Amino acid sequence: MKGIPKGTRDFGPKEMRKRNYIFDTIKRIFKLHGYGAIETPSMELLSNLMGKYGDEGDRLIFRITPRGDKLKKALNQPGISDIEFANKSEEALRYDLTVPFARYVVQHRNDISFPFKRYQIQPVWRADRPQRGRYREFYQCDADVIGSDSLWNEVDLVAIINEVFTKLNLPDVKININNRKVLMGVAESIGVSDRVIDLTVALDKLDKIGPEGVQKELLGKGFTEAQIGRVEELFKLSDNWEENFTVLETFMANSEIGQQGLDELKTLYKYCQSLNLGNIYFNVTLARGLNYYTGAIFEVTHPQFPSSICGGGRYDNLTGVFGLPDVSGVGISFGADRIYDLLEDLNLFPEEAASGLVLGCVNFGEKEAIYAQKLVAELRTKGIQAEVYPSSAKMKKQMKYFGERNAQYVVMAGTQEIENKTYTLKNMTTGEQSSVSLNEIINHLSE
Amino acid sequence: MKGIPKGTRDFGPKEMRKRNYIFDTIKRIFKLHGYGAIETPSMELLSNLMGKYGDEGDRLIFRITPRGDKLKKALNQPGISDIEFANKSEEALRYDLTVPFARYVVQHRNDISFPFKRYQIQPVWRADRPQRGRYREFYQCDADVIGSDSLWNEVDLVAIINEVFTKLNLPDVKININNRKVLMGVAESIGVSDRVIDLTVALDKLDKIGPEGVQKELLGKGFTEAQIGRVEELFKLSDNWEENFTVLETFMANSEIGQQGLDELKTLYKYCQSLNLGNIYFNVTLARGLNYYTGAIFEVTHPQFPSSICGGGRYDNLTGVFGLPDVSGVGISFGADRIYDLLEDLNLFPEEAASGLVLGCVNFGEKEAIYAQKLVAELRTKGIQAEVYPSSAKMKKQMKYFGERNAQYVVMAGTQEIENKTYTLKNMTTGEQSSVSLNEIINHLSE
Repeated sequence: MKGIPKGTRDFGPKEMRKRNYIFDTIKRIFKLHGYGAIETPSMELLSNLMGKYGDEGDRLIFRITPRGDKLKKALNQPGISDIEFANKSEEALRYDLTVPFARYVVQHRNDISFPFKRYQIQPVWRADRPQRGRYREFYQCDADVIGSDSLWNEVDLVAIINEVFTKLNLPDVKININNRKVLMGVAESIGVSDRVIDLTVALDKLDKIGPEGVQKELLGKGFTEAQIGRVEELFKLSDNWEENFTVLETFMANSEIGQQGLDELKTLYKYCQSLNLGNIYFNVTLARGLNYYTGAIFEVTHPQFPSSICGGGRYDNLTGVFGLPDVSGVGISFGADRIYDLLEDLNLFPEEAASGLVLGCVNFGEKEAIYAQKLVAELRTKGIQAEVYPSSAKMKKQMKYFGERNAQYVVMAGTQEIENKTYTLKNMTTGEQSSVSLNEIINHLSE
Repeated sequence: MKGIPKGTRDFGPKEMRKRNYIFDTIKRIFKLHGYGAIETPSMELLSNLMGKYGDEGDRLIFRITPRGDKLKKALNQPGISDIEFANKSEEALRYDLTVPFARYVVQHRNDISFPFKRYQIQPVWRADRPQRGRYREFYQCDADVIGSDSLWNEVDLVAIINEVFTKLNLPDVKININNRKVLMGVAESIGVSDRVIDLTVALDKLDKIGPEGVQKELLGKGFTEAQIGRVEELFKLSDNWEENFTVLETFMANSEIGQQGLDELKTLYKYCQSLNLGNIYFNVTLARGLNYYTGAIFEVTHPQFPSSICGGGRYDNLTGVFGLPDVSGVGISFGADRIYDLLEDLNLFPEEAASGLVLGCVNFGEKEAIYAQKLVAELRTKGIQAEVYPSSAKMKKQMKYFGERNAQYVVMAGTQEIENKTYTLKNMTTGEQSSVSLNEIINHLSE
């Protein structure tokens, strides 16, 4: 017995209740907004994954070992390198949910009604070096709309983010919003439109390395002092929408793409205002690493957590690589593991998510067990979770077990109770004990 | 774009709604009976899986390709065979949920309260040749109690099976029950106690190959005519409990283990009777292939489906292989894919599982969209699924979309409606259209 692979985790019943509390909350809101679930296979064809995540990503994809003749043939290739061998795999574990989703849309495009609103909550695998908060298997939790470039989709995702975090008792999240076109407009306006990636990569680190760090990085990339000076003007901007619109209109006066980005943000802001959607902040230095974003960019932060807990954006050509060009989409992804840690830190899991068994019955012997089994069968038909201890072990042992299971109530019923058709009900929180009828238990526990 | 790996599947929103209907029904009943969810990693250490599923099973385990130095080292071993190479993998995809569960119990034994009642619903992977109804990735759906040898656990599983299939509108299932000790008693009574596996493997095929087939197979295995004659007496047994008890008591008069098996079945039957649990049949030829069963054996069939849709049994030494001997357990596993096919064949999915969107709103332009967005936001707070078409596309296109989404209602609201604070609500089933207020929509759809 040597445990489990590095970077993977077991989840016991207590963790599962809390994890499901998060997933169920998110799922419910996705569904209320009209998103439908899909699931794709854990394995994708390696050829469909390669080249989609950069060189580093390609390296971190878990490959499935070839079998049979394919394996024999590969092993018989003299001097085959490890990389050549690894790339002979037919199947690999999915690395994220976005590429499989793009593949799904292209493969099933004739059966899909566009705009297609899907959510997907499944694990992904990355052969990353494991460390605190980074695992080799973890769940992603994505919602995307594909086949519509309407900004109402962005608004809907903002509404979803707000509803999810309100339900999870985290109302003071900050939804940072920017637009990739604004970043391109900035680059164009300072004369580096060919180096928009260098610019965004540097800007993306602002939170971590500060303005001086960004300045240094841009200098290293060959930006002039004058260009950097202009970038620094942006650092002084607040997250106030109206103010930023005014400043940037002048800043990017000669950039068509920049003005387009601003227009999109203005519409998004107007729509959000019309629906009283709060928590939104215009953060012009928000870049996010993912280069496939082409419009809106979202990143959700919480004052008491160091990294983002949700993110997303609009992409215009996700399915192009699979042969279906010009399909615009926008999506978000919730960081379930980080949300779990945050709720745990702030002690925000509700009692239901933390508690175990609702009602346990002590087993005093065969006759009593039958009497108790009839009780729990009845309670279950009322939706009340209940069980009888399976053997007539010592009372102390049974009570210890129900204590460990976090049972909220324990029922004891012996000869006396059977005769009177009653039950002795013990409230495990208060220790209070009372003699009750079946209906009294049901009424009490259905509350 | 070359699709997905052989033997794997994509599930779209319609299939997912039906699949989740099955999983949610089963989960709810597991929970009501006090079972807690666990999840284990998709990858287990290959060394923990090897040797647990027989030679054929070992071959069908999906291996993860080694990485870095480990891969280089393996490739540099001259003349390494494909099997040697495959067994150098550190990680492999889980082949079932039972072995990971045993590993979990041993690894976490100090944190677990026994008897431990867990359920687990996760995919498993097998490199089997794909064919109709057999996939390389499929979900298993297991519930087990470990750490208690009380027969009340068996009774509880029978109750779960009945409740699940009643909820799924399949009340006429047949829960076939036998006991491995009875099979051992039969073998002992006819003088072949050293060949109980040969006997059970042959008996297990009775349904497929008939009495003559079993006879032939036993002859081939070296059973004498006299021994086979005695086995054939069992074929004449009905599935009546009392009758079988009488016949078998004589049949196995001199087998202690056989009598023990009968006693267990008698107790199980008595307990089931005391709780009015029906659908149970004593099938003395029921064997099931899995040799780790040591007590009760279950197999659930439906008159309109060719193979079993649920199965399970008691095992006395599942965790022994991981260093924790003498922990008795009993479990069942629902065949979700088969249940799906059966419900589909019999057209038994309820309307909710088949239907799509509850309410869609036509988008007539910006002002109308805002009016509609406010409506759907309000409906969602009441738990009603609703969405607005994201752009003001042609009415026909929007109605076609809502038709494809199986929307139950469509709301149209233009200048007139905005002025009167009303909505035109169209019932998509009847075609009926009416002018209604917000409260009328809520009352109507909350019903």
